[in-house]
Amino acid sequence: MALKTLIEEANNEGMNIMFSSKPRWVDVKPAIDVVPGMKENLVLHAGPPVSWERMCSAQKNGVAGAAVFEGLADTLEEAKAMAAAGEIEIDACHDHATVGSMTGITSASMPMMIVDNAPYGNRAYINVHEGPSRNRLTYGAFNREVEKNLIWIRDVLGPALADAVDAMGGMDIVPIIARSLTMGDECHNRPTAGSALFALRVLPVIIDNGLEREQLAKTARFLGETEHFFFHLGMAAGKAMTDAMSGIPYCSVVTAMARNGTEVGIRVSGTDDQWFIGPAADIEGSYFSGYGPEDAEADIGDSAIMETTGLGAFAMAASVPMAYAIGGTAEDAIKYQESMAEITVTRHQAYQVPTLDYRGTPVGIDVRKVVHTGVLPIIDTAIAHKDGGEIGVGIARPPMECFSQALRELHRVTKASSAQARS
Amino acid sequence: MALKTLIEEANNEGMNIMFSSKPRWVDVKPAIDVVPGMKENLVLHAGPPVSWERMCSAQKNGVAGAAVFEGLADTLEEAKAMAAAGEIEIDACHDHATVGSMTGITSASMPMMIVDNAPYGNRAYINVHEGPSRNRLTYGAFNREVEKNLIWIRDVLGPALADAVDAMGGMDIVPIIARSLTMGDECHNRPTAGSALFALRVLPVIIDNGLEREQLAKTARFLGETEHFFFHLGMAAGKAMTDAMSGIPYCSVVTAMARNGTEVGIRVSGTDDQWFIGPAADIEGSYFSGYGPEDAEADIGDSAIMETTGLGAFAMAASVPMAYAIGGTAEDAIKYQESMAEITVTRHQAYQVPTLDYRGTPVGIDVRKVVHTGVLPIIDTAIAHKDGGEIGVGIARPPMECFSQALRELHRVTKASSAQARS
Repeated sequence: MALKTLIEEANNEGMNIMFSSKPRWVDVKPAIDVVPGMKENLVLHAGPPVSWERMCSAQKNGVAGAAVFEGLADTLEEAKAMAAAGEIEIDACHDHATVGSMTGITSASMPMMIVDNAPYGNRAYINVHEGPSRNRLTYGAFNREVEKNLIWIRDVLGPALADAVDAMGGMDIVPIIARSLTMGDECHNRPTAGSALFALRVLPVIIDNGLEREQLAKTARFLGETEHFFFHLGMAAGKAMTDAMSGIPYCSVVTAMARNGTEVGIRVSGTDDQWFIGPAADIEGSYFSGYGPEDAEADIGDSAIMETTGLGAFAMAASVPMAYAIGGTAEDAIKYQESMAEITVTRHQAYQVPTLDYRGTPVGIDVRKVVHTGVLPIIDTAIAHKDGGEIGVGIARPPMECFSQALRELHRVTKASSAQARS
Repeated sequence: MALKTLIEEANNEGMNIMFSSKPRWVDVKPAIDVVPGMKENLVLHAGPPVSWERMCSAQKNGVAGAAVFEGLADTLEEAKAMAAAGEIEIDACHDHATVGSMTGITSASMPMMIVDNAPYGNRAYINVHEGPSRNRLTYGAFNREVEKNLIWIRDVLGPALADAVDAMGGMDIVPIIARSLTMGDECHNRPTAGSALFALRVLPVIIDNGLEREQLAKTARFLGETEHFFFHLGMAAGKAMTDAMSGIPYCSVVTAMARNGTEVGIRVSGTDDQWFIGPAADIEGSYFSGYGPEDAEADIGDSAIMETTGLGAFAMAASVPMAYAIGGTAEDAIKYQESMAEITVTRHQAYQVPTLDYRGTPVGIDVRKVVHTGVLPIIDTAIAHKDGGEIGVGIARPPMECFSQALRELHRVTKASSAQARS
C-alpha cells in the first residue's frame, strides 16, 4: 500500500479514536494518590520537559511556590536552591497523563480532577482552577493569599467536588463543551457558558451532600465567579482523547502542543510520546491596563490541548467576543477558525458552530499539511507576567521547526517499519 | 413645526426614555400587596382586555386554575361558572403595570417580582416562572402537580427570592440581558445564558440567608433547570421601560404588543394606554413530537414586550439556535432581525450582537413605518395547547389592522392637538 494511503488510514483511525472517546469526570483525588509517577518532591510543569536552568521565570516561581505549599521548603529562595540542586524534582505534566494551564504547576497534595476515557481505558488528570484572582500559582504568583486559597481548594473545594461527582456517578464532558459552543464559548480563553452550566449541575449536589453553610456559600460564589473553571475539565478531556490516539503507526496527527515559556513542544501520534521542540513564540496580545509586551512571559501552558482537539482558536467563530478581546472582528473570528481547515484532517463531529450553520470545527492537525502549507496552528492564550500573575490575552503560533522535525522523524520511522515489513 | 418633525422629536424622546431607564429588580411581594388595582377575586391575563365569552380556551383554563389555587372555587367547572357570572373578575395584565407570559394568568397571592425604574419613578410586575415542566398554569394547565408547584413558589421560592434581592440591594437587569446576547440568547424564547448568570448571582445569597437545606437543594435545581427563569425579569424590565415612555404627544413608537389568543392589541406612546386590536394570528411553528397546528392556541402572551424593546426576533442574529428551532438557518437569523430595521426608529444602545460586530438591535417600532412598508413585527413565541401545556415554538406577526388603526388614531389626536394649539 502506498505510504500516503497508510498515513491517511492511520489518520482516520486516530480521528475515530478522538470522536469515540468518552471523557467523563469521575473523581477528585490528591495527585500523589493517582497521578502516574507522582512523588512527594516532584513538581509538574506545563510544556515539554525543561531543565531548571532553562525554565522561565514565571514557571520557576510556580515550582518554588508549590514547594513552599507542600512544606518542602520554608521560603521561595530555599525552594529555588533545592530545585537547582535536584532535591526538588521537576517534570512535564504531559508525561504523567496530566495537563496544566499556564505554568501548569502541579504538586503532590493538590486535588486532581480525574477524567476517565472508558472506551480506551485511559485517564487524564488536572488540578482544580484557582479562581477569579489574577494572582494564582498557575500564573507563577505565590504569596499568603495564593497559599490560603490553595489550602482551601485542597481541604474544602476538592473534597466537596469529589463527593459531588461521586453522588452524580460522573459527568460527561463533551456534551457540555458542545452546548457551550452555542453560547459564545470557544472553550479555551472563553469558557464562560460551560463553567456556568457546570456550576449549575454541581451546586445542587454539593448542597445535598451537606457541606457546612459558610463553605457552601463560598463554594457557590467561587464556582459562579470562576469563568474558567470548566476549562480545566475541557483540558483533561482533551488529554484523555489525545493520549488514547497516541502511538498509531503512520498517523501524522498532532496529539499535543505544549509550551513552557522557554520552548514549545509538539507530539505526533505516529511518533508516540517523542517531543519535537522549538523556541517559545511571543504572543500577539492585548494587555490589561498598565502592562505591555516587556512584562510578558513567552507562550506558556498545556492549554493548547484545546486547539489540538478542535477548540480555542479552532472554534473562534463560535466566540466573537474572544476575537474582539484580541483586537479582531466578527469576520476575523471566522477567518482564524476556518484558516485552520487548511491544516486539519476533518471537521469535528460534536463541536459545531451555530453561526456557520453548525459546521464542525476544524480538527486533527496534520503535521504534513502544516509543513506543506506553511500555515501554523493558532492558539488562543492568556499572558503571564514574568514575575507571576495574569496580564492579558492573545494568540500565539508554535514555531515551524516543531512540525518540520516531527515530519522528518515520522518519515524516518515509517520508512524503517516499511523496510522491516519488507524484510 | 412640521408634523413630521414633531413626531421625530417625540420618537427620539421616547427612545431616550427607553435607553435611560434603569430597570432594577428590587423586591418580591404578593400581587395583592403591590399590583395596582389587584383584588382577591381578580385574575389578570395576557393581551388586551377580553370578555370571558371571547377568551380562548387555554386562558379560560388558566383563569379557572388560578381561582381554584386562590380558594375562590373548589373545581375548575365552578370557577368557570363564577367567571361567566362575573364573580371572578378578569382584566389585562398590561392595565395593572404587569406583564404575563403565554396566558399571563396572575392572581392575588402569587409572589410578584418587582422591577423599579428609578429615573422615571415607575414599577412593573411579573409573577415567578413556574419551572421547566411543560405543564404550567402559564400554559393554561392546572392539576394537582401544577398546584403543588404554585404553592411551593408562593411559600418557599418567592420568599427566598425576596430575601435574596433584599440582601443584594437589588439587581440591574439590562447588564445581564446585554451579556446574555453575547452568549447565544435572544432573551425571549432563548434566555438560557441570562437565566444561568442570574442563578449564579442569586444562589450564593440564598445560601447565606439560611434557607433550610432540602428547600435550598430544590431551589438550586429549580433555578439551574429553569432556562426561562430570567425571561420573566426581562419582560418586567421591558414593561418598566415602555410604561415610562408612554403618553408622549406625537410619539409613534409602539409601547406594547400583547396577545390573548383571541386578539392582538398594540399600544403607541402618542395615544397612551389606548389599545388597537386585531384578530390573533396563527403561529408558523415547530411542534414537539405528537403535536400539530390543530392542537395549537393562536398567538398568546405579553412576552412580545421583548420585541417591543429590541429583543426576541429583533435580536435573533444573536441566537442562531433560536432560528434553527423554527426551521431557519444562520442567514435567516440575521434576516429576521435586520428586516426589523425597516420599521424601527434606531439601534439599541445596550443590546448588541457580537456576530454583527456589536451592532445594536433594531428597536422602537414606528407604526408609521409598519404601515408604509407593510413589514409587520416578528415575534418569537412559544405555542400553547388549546387544553393547556407547551407544545412548540414559532414566530408570529401581529395583524396590520392594529397598526393602521393606531396610525389613524395618532393622526386624529395630533391633528386635534395641533388645532388646539392654533386656536
